[in-house]
Amino acid sequence: MKTHFAHPFDDDKLKEECGVFGVSGVSDAANFVALGLHALQHRGQEAGGIVSYAPDSGFNSARRFGYVRDNFTKQSLMETLPGELAIGHVRYSTAGSKGAAIRDVQPFFGEFSMGGAAIAHNGNITNADALRRELIERGSIFQSSSDSECIIHLMARSLQRNIPERMEDALRRVEGAFSIVAMTRTKLIGVRDALGVRPLVLGRIEAGGYVLSSETCALDIIGAEFVREIEPGEMVVISDGSVESSFPFRRKASRFCIFEHVYFSRPDSILGGRSVYETRRQIGIELAKESPVEADLVCPVPDSGTPAAIGYSHESGIPYAMGIIRNQYMGRTFIEPTEQIRNMGVRLKLNVNRALIEGKRVILVDDSVVRAPQAARSRK
Amino acid sequence: MKTHFAHPFDDDKLKEECGVFGVSGVSDAANFVALGLHALQHRGQEAGGIVSYAPDSGFNSARRFGYVRDNFTKQSLMETLPGELAIGHVRYSTAGSKGAAIRDVQPFFGEFSMGGAAIAHNGNITNADALRRELIERGSIFQSSSDSECIIHLMARSLQRNIPERMEDALRRVEGAFSIVAMTRTKLIGVRDALGVRPLVLGRIEAGGYVLSSETCALDIIGAEFVREIEPGEMVVISDGSVESSFPFRRKASRFCIFEHVYFSRPDSILGGRSVYETRRQIGIELAKESPVEADLVCPVPDSGTPAAIGYSHESGIPYAMGIIRNQYMGRTFIEPTEQIRNMGVRLKLNVNRALIEGKRVILVDDSVVRAPQAARSRK
Amino acid sequence: MKTHFAHPFDDDKLKEECGVFGVSGVSDAANFVALGLHALQHRGQEAGGIVSYAPDSGFNSARRFGYVRDNFTKQSLMETLPGELAIGHVRYSTAGSKGAAIRDVQPFFGEFSMGGAAIAHNGNITNADALRRELIERGSIFQSSSDSECIIHLMARSLQRNIPERMEDALRRVEGAFSIVAMTRTKLIGVRDALGVRPLVLGRIEAGGYVLSSETCALDIIGAEFVREIEPGEMVVISDGSVESSFPFRRKASRFCIFEHVYFSRPDSILGGRSVYETRRQIGIELAKESPVEADLVCPVPDSGTPAAIGYSHESGIPYAMGIIRNQYMGRTFIEPTEQIRNMGVRLKLNVNRALIEGKRVILVDDSVVRAPQAARSRK
Amino acid sequence: MKTHFAHPFDDDKLKEECGVFGVSGVSDAANFVALGLHALQHRGQEAGGIVSYAPDSGFNSARRFGYVRDNFTKQSLMETLPGELAIGHVRYSTAGSKGAAIRDVQPFFGEFSMGGAAIAHNGNITNADALRRELIERGSIFQSSSDSECIIHLMARSLQRNIPERMEDALRRVEGAFSIVAMTRTKLIGVRDALGVRPLVLGRIEAGGYVLSSETCALDIIGAEFVREIEPGEMVVISDGSVESSFPFRRKASRFCIFEHVYFSRPDSILGGRSVYETRRQIGIELAKESPVEADLVCPVPDSGTPAAIGYSHESGIPYAMGIIRNQYMGRTFIEPTEQIRNMGVRLKLNVNRALIEGKRVILVDDSVVRAPQAARSRK
Repeated sequence: MKTHFAHPFDDDKLKEECGVFGVSGVSDAANFVALGLHALQHRGQEAGGIVSYAPDSGFNSARRFGYVRDNFTKQSLMETLPGELAIGHVRYSTAGSKGAAIRDVQPFFGEFSMGGAAIAHNGNITNADALRRELIERGSIFQSSSDSECIIHLMARSLQRNIPERMEDALRRVEGAFSIVAMTRTKLIGVRDALGVRPLVLGRIEAGGYVLSSETCALDIIGAEFVREIEPGEMVVISDGSVESSFPFRRKASRFCIFEHVYFSRPDSILGGRSVYETRRQIGIELAKESPVEADLVCPVPDSGTPAAIGYSHESGIPYAMGIIRNQYMGRTFIEPTEQIRNMGVRLKLNVNRALIEGKRVILVDDSVVRAPQAARSRK
Repeated sequence: MKTHFAHPFDDDKLKEECGVFGVSGVSDAANFVALGLHALQHRGQEAGGIVSYAPDSGFNSARRFGYVRDNFTKQSLMETLPGELAIGHVRYSTAGSKGAAIRDVQPFFGEFSMGGAAIAHNGNITNADALRRELIERGSIFQSSSDSECIIHLMARSLQRNIPERMEDALRRVEGAFSIVAMTRTKLIGVRDALGVRPLVLGRIEAGGYVLSSETCALDIIGAEFVREIEPGEMVVISDGSVESSFPFRRKASRFCIFEHVYFSRPDSILGGRSVYETRRQIGIELAKESPVEADLVCPVPDSGTPAAIGYSHESGIPYAMGIIRNQYMGRTFIEPTEQIRNMGVRLKLNVNRALIEGKRVILVDDSVVRAPQAARSRK
Repeated sequence: MKTHFAHPFDDDKLKEECGVFGVSGVSDAANFVALGLHALQHRGQEAGGIVSYAPDSGFNSARRFGYVRDNFTKQSLMETLPGELAIGHVRYSTAGSKGAAIRDVQPFFGEFSMGGAAIAHNGNITNADALRRELIERGSIFQSSSDSECIIHLMARSLQRNIPERMEDALRRVEGAFSIVAMTRTKLIGVRDALGVRPLVLGRIEAGGYVLSSETCALDIIGAEFVREIEPGEMVVISDGSVESSFPFRRKASRFCIFEHVYFSRPDSILGGRSVYETRRQIGIELAKESPVEADLVCPVPDSGTPAAIGYSHESGIPYAMGIIRNQYMGRTFIEPTEQIRNMGVRLKLNVNRALIEGKRVILVDDSVVRAPQAARSRK
Repeated sequence: MKTHFAHPFDDDKLKEECGVFGVSGVSDAANFVALGLHALQHRGQEAGGIVSYAPDSGFNSARRFGYVRDNFTKQSLMETLPGELAIGHVRYSTAGSKGAAIRDVQPFFGEFSMGGAAIAHNGNITNADALRRELIERGSIFQSSSDSECIIHLMARSLQRNIPERMEDALRRVEGAFSIVAMTRTKLIGVRDALGVRPLVLGRIEAGGYVLSSETCALDIIGAEFVREIEPGEMVVISDGSVESSFPFRRKASRFCIFEHVYFSRPDSILGGRSVYETRRQIGIELAKESPVEADLVCPVPDSGTPAAIGYSHESGIPYAMGIIRNQYMGRTFIEPTEQIRNMGVRLKLNVNRALIEGKRVILVDDSVVRAPQAARSRK
């Protein structure tokens, strides 16, 4: 754990996270999904999509660039997504794409002979290129540059007679990480790869209905109760108000992604029975024990460094303070004036609280450092 | 100082703040203004406008609803705002308007016989209704429902032969608060009412050029140096790289708005020589002395309650913790699902960190409470 | 009368026409105005605007670039224009504007001490520059570059106590041509200058209600009955279902614009008691008498040359034929491919019916020729 | 042939036409396609799409609702379609769609193992339902509700090793009508079914390059020379500046669609060596012989009835006149005012020239009558 000047979503950090969410057994399911995706927005800010199903109007979908709150709050759009069953996806970016395109936005949908299915995928498929080549060779037409589209094509070609079994078939061909929320006309389906790389949790709505979500914070926003995590290698099929569990994939030793604890997940989520906030605070306590430093103040790089800075302060007794102020109205594409402006990129989001730190010895705590030279440069 | 569950921009808080910003003597002045308005976005999130002047193309303006970063970052728009002189405005809402309209968005512009002028106004005009009636009676045609439009009409009717003197004339008729940034073809003008209700500061760009801004945090974002505050009752006229100061209004005892310290201004701004962050922290220290409570944790209502909670923790020795997590992707207009969801409004932005506070005695610190019943209700 | 290859709205023709329309005494008056403006679209295709008044919601307006049918057909927009009284305007372009701006689109609106008024103007004000200078000198703030805005400012400054009298006051200062449709909260007003340069007619709706329109073809579209033309120098004030007429302006010899007969007006309109179609057909008959030519075919330049070509054919006995086919989907801004394409501008709208005219002697009849060299050039 | 009051694109007429266009061997090919589609707009006004290929940027596509002139004239859009090879499509509506969706707009694109291909299809596939069922059964995922999408999936599944042969394979499975323009990275392909139901012509650009188009009028707009019609059952493959012809489909007796002559095609196009205008004029002459009527005037229902009315007039000697005037600014979705307005739908586009026909015996000539009761009703 190092300290530097950067934001969790800056260019020197990983960008492979996505958020998935699904709900069944409630009226206006798409509105619940919109709220859930809003709570998961930190997992993907570039685009979002929702698919819903209603007996009268069939499957409907809407996919949009931008924040959930700017798109899926419009009455006119939400009315096009009726039904008691819906899933959604927020994403950061798609590997392999030469430019963002709306056709790369999930969920993906396919009409099979036994009815339609939609899937939303969080994870990285390591044999995606080989799968795509093979599927094209056999006559599948890809609509996106997203690796995740392989799954729906594998499902389309499966010889199984029902969709959950087609999904098992398809996922047995997929190597890599997947936490998936999927739906048919009657079923909400959740699956997690055998390594359990990405999180997926099950929730219950008191008035009836089940929820699948990447994180528990999205259960909170709709007042749903946390039931349990989907286990590595597990598939749950929710229909008619009951949850059926199976373990179609060979068991492996769990390899949960440590960056979920460090910065992907929201601090108010619970991962593996532990509060993300508390994990980060403990890392700060540990850091203070490992690397004690004499200083006047402990300051976080907001927002993801905050719990660790609090922990460092608690352990070391050095006062906690806000040495860097974050602009809540994020944005990174301002046109730089032609005059020389130093560190413009950083100043757009973060500003040093100079009156506070001038002449002080400051311990600056961030969540992690991915590329040290970048960090060193921006520190100057 | 009370504690409750609310956000500085929620419905139980005042909404009269605006942000003003101007720059002269730099190429692509409008890009500087866009950055300054972005740093002042917390003073007004509903709409923003920029006016610039270039000898070739005259005055140009752009006014838009929404965030600065979503509008004034587009190359195609910024290219329509050339020149070395520009001013801008961000606003929350306009008193008296029955519905938001783009014609209510500042700066306001008027073409006079000696040339055009644009003004951006932060403050409340207490005799606006009487002024408007009088001006209409004499044949002025108002284009907006904004009180601030009175000023430009008073200027249009002044008998003075130059624009700064017309502005003095106009402002002598205005009762109430004003911090104004204005411009002509060659001059950048700043004025502050004699009571000094709203802030206004002067900055200098190292490479040349002057800046006027509501707060110092907007000087930081463009790397400008803080020179001094504009004094109550002072008018500065900046042209050809020099700043002329005058005091055209009768002196009064200063009555700076306390809410600027409490929650309007950003914590990294300097007001009256004092860091806003430090003022708020001291309020927390004072609160801990006045109202000591036995507890396990001190938690802020993010974000404006944070410095006071830090102060309370420092003074009381009770550990500081993040008991409420704020969703960075603010939004308040989600369509509520028909199922019962409790406290939806609050959960959209704030979520309780239950794993942290369960079973704990928590002191919750916010910046202020405007309407107690609302606070009590939302606390349940 | 010459023959050439050009379209009435091409660059070698006059562009000063506009269309005005108003209706009172019907529910959803704005929908009637939308239909009327659609029928008058040939008088101005660049932009259109509608103002309506309803006791509950006051004055409302909408101004848009583009065709009436693309804007004023949307339920969501038309719902913002309630009431039983509404006026509208379509325009080609505004003299003096350096670029089209929505603030130049009429109707113009002013709030006076006795209430609001909106005006829509068709015509050219010859002393507009002097009026504008004078009004600015006295403190009026212009919002547009349109000459027509002078009228509303003159009204705002009139000392008269009611709006129709303020309008008389204002128009006595105006030199040039005007056919105006205006409205207050209760009155629909029509005025025509003493020379009677531009047309203006009065219609009645069987179910109740009165209509003012530039041309009779816009009465037809809403099934209104043609009552009579507004006379040169006449003002009509329609309120409570009655029409009051007065002649506030000094009489002059009428100087109706001949181009209304020749190409501004639609062929199915009645001007001065004569069908426009029949006038144009008679011109063709006259042309055949004056300039008989031996030929195989008589072909019009569509569409405005058609009636004259029919007349020429009737008189001469030479068969009428469609030698030029017009693309109904007009447009003039296609990006020209880099390869050499001759006469691209013309081919976008008009295509020669080569199979018909090859080897034939053709008399080509257009409505008029403004600039002969242009015509000669495009003929090659 | 009957006479009535209706427009060729009204609800009582067929709506299955589309327009296809392609060009190769010119720089900025997409700009040529935009012009060609503009000239073919009468064949489909609902939506249009263009696909282009350039070695640097690969295949690019843009699909839009609305007129060609409103979309494919924008510099910013056209710049996204670089290359010397491009095809396009305009369409009216898609059989089987429950609502217009952008994914139904052609050209369709597929990435195959040997490279990508795009196709634009005009015609009706009579075995589309069976083909779709079969393809889904085998694992193809359809993206649209368009019958034409079957062709690209059949191509994707063909075992042939190059794209033209895959296309032959696919089209042998298709029953019904097709005139297709397709493209690969290097080839422009045109095909016409063995019955030759829909038209397709080949043109040459003097400066180099070949064109395929539904009608000859789209050759005229870009100044291309008409070479010949693609024959029924013929496939042409254009690459490296040469045209290869083959006849892969079994010969049948040609069954060219008579409605192309009657109203689908533009009068200035040449079909089967005959001018469409002249065919329609001859129909009018024939009608005058078959059904002579005593009358004062012969009037067309504009615009498609015009040539036949001219023919009737020539044969009968009864003067030709414009008894109905057409509004050039078509639109059919105006909100009807609540007051009673008779025949609103018709009046929006067509207005009776009452001054002309009052008291006259009029022969009204239209192109055809599809549903007589509708015609009778609208005649009242």
